[in-house]
Amino acid sequence: MRVHPMWNSFPALQADLANVLELIDTHIRVRDKTIEKTIKDLVHSGGKLLRPAYSLLCAEIGPEYDKEKATAVAAALETLHMATLVHDDVIDGATTRHGIPTIHTTHGNQIAIYSGDYLFSVTFTLLSRHATSLAHLEFNSRSMEKILSGELDQLHSRFKPPESVKNYLSRISGKTAQLFAVSCYSGAIESNASRRNTMNAWNMGHYIGMAFQIMDDILDYKGNEKTVGKPVMADVQQGIYTLPLIYAMQSNRKTLKPILEKQEALTDQDMQIILRTIEEEKGLEKAQQLAERYTKKALKELNKLPNGTYKDTLYQITTSLLNRNL
Amino acid sequence: MRVHPMWNSFPALQADLANVLELIDTHIRVRDKTIEKTIKDLVHSGGKLLRPAYSLLCAEIGPEYDKEKATAVAAALETLHMATLVHDDVIDGATTRHGIPTIHTTHGNQIAIYSGDYLFSVTFTLLSRHATSLAHLEFNSRSMEKILSGELDQLHSRFKPPESVKNYLSRISGKTAQLFAVSCYSGAIESNASRRNTMNAWNMGHYIGMAFQIMDDILDYKGNEKTVGKPVMADVQQGIYTLPLIYAMQSNRKTLKPILEKQEALTDQDMQIILRTIEEEKGLEKAQQLAERYTKKALKELNKLPNGTYKDTLYQITTSLLNRNL
Repeated sequence: MRVHPMWNSFPALQADLANVLELIDTHIRVRDKTIEKTIKDLVHSGGKLLRPAYSLLCAEIGPEYDKEKATAVAAALETLHMATLVHDDVIDGATTRHGIPTIHTTHGNQIAIYSGDYLFSVTFTLLSRHATSLAHLEFNSRSMEKILSGELDQLHSRFKPPESVKNYLSRISGKTAQLFAVSCYSGAIESNASRRNTMNAWNMGHYIGMAFQIMDDILDYKGNEKTVGKPVMADVQQGIYTLPLIYAMQSNRKTLKPILEKQEALTDQDMQIILRTIEEEKGLEKAQQLAERYTKKALKELNKLPNGTYKDTLYQITTSLLNRNL
Repeated sequence: MRVHPMWNSFPALQADLANVLELIDTHIRVRDKTIEKTIKDLVHSGGKLLRPAYSLLCAEIGPEYDKEKATAVAAALETLHMATLVHDDVIDGATTRHGIPTIHTTHGNQIAIYSGDYLFSVTFTLLSRHATSLAHLEFNSRSMEKILSGELDQLHSRFKPPESVKNYLSRISGKTAQLFAVSCYSGAIESNASRRNTMNAWNMGHYIGMAFQIMDDILDYKGNEKTVGKPVMADVQQGIYTLPLIYAMQSNRKTLKPILEKQEALTDQDMQIILRTIEEEKGLEKAQQLAERYTKKALKELNKLPNGTYKDTLYQITTSLLNRNL
């Protein structure tokens, strides 16, 4: 199993992640072999596997590390993530992900919708076969509800005037931070970590997810297609107004409001004005500062966890995410 | 809670089904209240609630009838069914269901896709909160996989030459009979029925589902929009070739083949020819006979269940489905 090269300097974790992919692969069984191959290709399309990585590392927090169980939980988190990506790509009309054509591009929306559904069902098979308790599973289902409720929220607020920073944070908390929190929490709880440490893991995951999404939103303004894997300023074109723009809007509403209220698609000139205003109002810097604050909070929770080398790996991954040099 | 009038002559069951709807309703919580209302409206849009009805009745098979648990399991089965319907409607471009505009018609495909996903997650929350065991849950997840694998199969075989009767039966077994089998099985197992009776319930549900889908496919050729809730011959227009057409094709390939191989949309005249050929070759009668055979098999399994008045209700519902006078 080929695992993303960002893990090359963590060979033990990389091997564990290869097992996660292997386990997912064995669970994908569709009678129609073309579709089975499409879904399996998605599994091996080179996603970063951040959520399973955090989950595996957090499975070393408690006293009862169980490799088989940890692998299954990590696999469930990744299939859940993949399921939402497949549906997100249909919804956004995204044509590629990680440079590979999306399922709805090659096979149509119909196959893509059911493939996402299929991956959801694999998530729950994995969890119910390997997770410790129904309580944990209920927790995961409720988290999934929250994630979807967050996505529904975001959809409904598209092309509406940029919201407050507070609303933005609440939206990304549901959309992204929830799954990072669940990943860390699941690892911790399945290893029978103490109540306090399980909470630390949850909080750490939440803060990491917040920082991750803010960085992702910053990169949408300044990244290139290769780093981010999607065209620059894709969000604003789809009516998704993120933190850098919200900050700019707070200081220079006059310039931005008429552009964002336009009924037609944004022109190149509109995009230039938006980008310039964000630069002038230091929207990217302010957003970066907030991402740093969240990363610091994450590291503070990390420090409270029991000692072990897994903490160093968690530290390295988390700080690298902020600089996106992973 | 308004429950479908087909249950008017079963007032006790009707009251239990009202509780099922009530429980689903309390589980739908989305921050965006417009979307929450849309999903809740779907819950109350007057579906027949066949799957929860079978599940509730089969919860009387075993010695440990637990009303709260039976209600939760029935609710999970209905949300799972609703989730697949929402996505099916997106995929088929269906504009109404039960005479009410579909979610993707009123709110767009995007909201519809996430609403379906949301309903999937509610299914698993309900099951993990109330079901007995992880083994039972795993069973449900795997069934969901099979259902989706069946749907993927059907999608991929669209507009391909009509398959054999055997392939058709295998396809509807995954697409429809699986969920009826799971419904009966879940009721039985949660009431701690004997292994033998749980198997009887599973088989009964499977046969009922087979008969139900064949009848549904027959009605697509002869029903009217009011009975079936969709336009006549919708399937063949979408490239889905069902049993009556498969039988007709076996006896008169010459007439049908050129029409079904056309690359353009079928004309009214094409449809007339298809319908006439099916009538001439007795495709509907032959399909009806097979549905009757499955119903008989279902009743044979029903007879093996422990005595109780629930058996009479099961008998009445099952025979009525065949005549579709429920």
